[in-house]
Amino acid sequence: MIYFYQPDIAKGIHELPEDEHQHCTRVLRKTSGDEVGIFDGVGGMYKVLLTEVSKKQTKFEIVESRQLVRKSFYNHIAIAPTKNMDRIEWFVEKACELGVDEISFLLTKNSERDKLRIDRLEKKAVSALKQSKSGYLTKINELVKLDQFLSQTPSDLKFIAVVEENLPYYAEVLQQDRNVLTLIGPEGDFTQEESKSAVASGFRKISLGKSVLRTETAGLMASHFVNTINRY
Amino acid sequence: MIYFYQPDIAKGIHELPEDEHQHCTRVLRKTSGDEVGIFDGVGGMYKVLLTEVSKKQTKFEIVESRQLVRKSFYNHIAIAPTKNMDRIEWFVEKACELGVDEISFLLTKNSERDKLRIDRLEKKAVSALKQSKSGYLTKINELVKLDQFLSQTPSDLKFIAVVEENLPYYAEVLQQDRNVLTLIGPEGDFTQEESKSAVASGFRKISLGKSVLRTETAGLMASHFVNTINRY
Repeated sequence: MIYFYQPDIAKGIHELPEDEHQHCTRVLRKTSGDEVGIFDGVGGMYKVLLTEVSKKQTKFEIVESRQLVRKSFYNHIAIAPTKNMDRIEWFVEKACELGVDEISFLLTKNSERDKLRIDRLEKKAVSALKQSKSGYLTKINELVKLDQFLSQTPSDLKFIAVVEENLPYYAEVLQQDRNVLTLIGPEGDFTQEESKSAVASGFRKISLGKSVLRTETAGLMASHFVNTINRY
Repeated sequence: MIYFYQPDIAKGIHELPEDEHQHCTRVLRKTSGDEVGIFDGVGGMYKVLLTEVSKKQTKFEIVESRQLVRKSFYNHIAIAPTKNMDRIEWFVEKACELGVDEISFLLTKNSERDKLRIDRLEKKAVSALKQSKSGYLTKINELVKLDQFLSQTPSDLKFIAVVEENLPYYAEVLQQDRNVLTLIGPEGDFTQEESKSAVASGFRKISLGKSVLRTETAGLMASHFVNTINRY
């Protein structure tokens, strides 16, 4: 079954959004009478019948629907965007594939980028939703200053990945079924002051392992640590 | 310290290979009298003094050397290359960053590619070696038919990642300090016959988790599972 995305289906909107309509008709050549799948991004999974397919729009009727169970933990990664936009987009695509629930972007002293095309990243999240069939859309947040983020973001378990000696290995301090927030620094890492103020805000310093990882790789590995502790 | 790659330094070759020479002189503008680092890819880490820098060549003298300890396990990933070459190169870059020891490429029934530019992938491995400072170069093997690979490749622990119900989660069957070989299938997965013959060759079926992962993502997550069980 081919899946599309319509966040407002539960509100009674029974037609595809513009890009999904274009993809459905121009690329996949679907026509009236075809059955396709729809995700609403919050666990709703629908089988629908295309009833009206024109150049303008793709309308449908719901044939059946089910609610996918949300997983037992919440995985939030906050990362300093890389200079190279491809690497950020790659990170978002892969993190969404892994079922990361929320991604925030941090403006830090060593950040190499202070602007982000969030709309492009949201498209990555939507395509990952359809590809992975997880049913839940990854929330993508706007770029925000680190100090503002530290003061405003609650979570059960808060960690900051830094390159230092004698830090606990991430798998040894994580716990199952919790809301976990992990901070990932830029190339050149967080500054001493930044990691200090994170610790002062309740974040615990952890190590992602012995390898020296690029920012986007570190972000993805942090995502996977949280999955593995939850056997997800 | 900036690092370069010279696999034959222990054989007494005290000049940089052609591309390293170009990078050292044209890009980094190094000159005689500068000190740089060199990896030989098998754990040798050298501090050298540049003694002769011309358009033709970069010669050096060894100032000091040390042998980096090899890690306690061996991580071999055998993967069916994706249609899109960027995704393979991305996988190789990231797997090398994670310290994967060996990467093989499999020709399977659903493989979307039967030719590979191994030289380009080896360049990725070299740049990852220098970036991660692991000291050990990831071995990149030529594309080979699955049945041939199955019959020819020894390892302590052999696993095949497939999308099936009720398989053990990878982290639950892995063991520390072992030579581990993981097979990763193409988009469309291994065929029934392929996974059967893998099992007949001593490979155990495992699950990489609940998400439906693209081939290159599955390969990277398998690499990370082996790292995490070894606290690496």
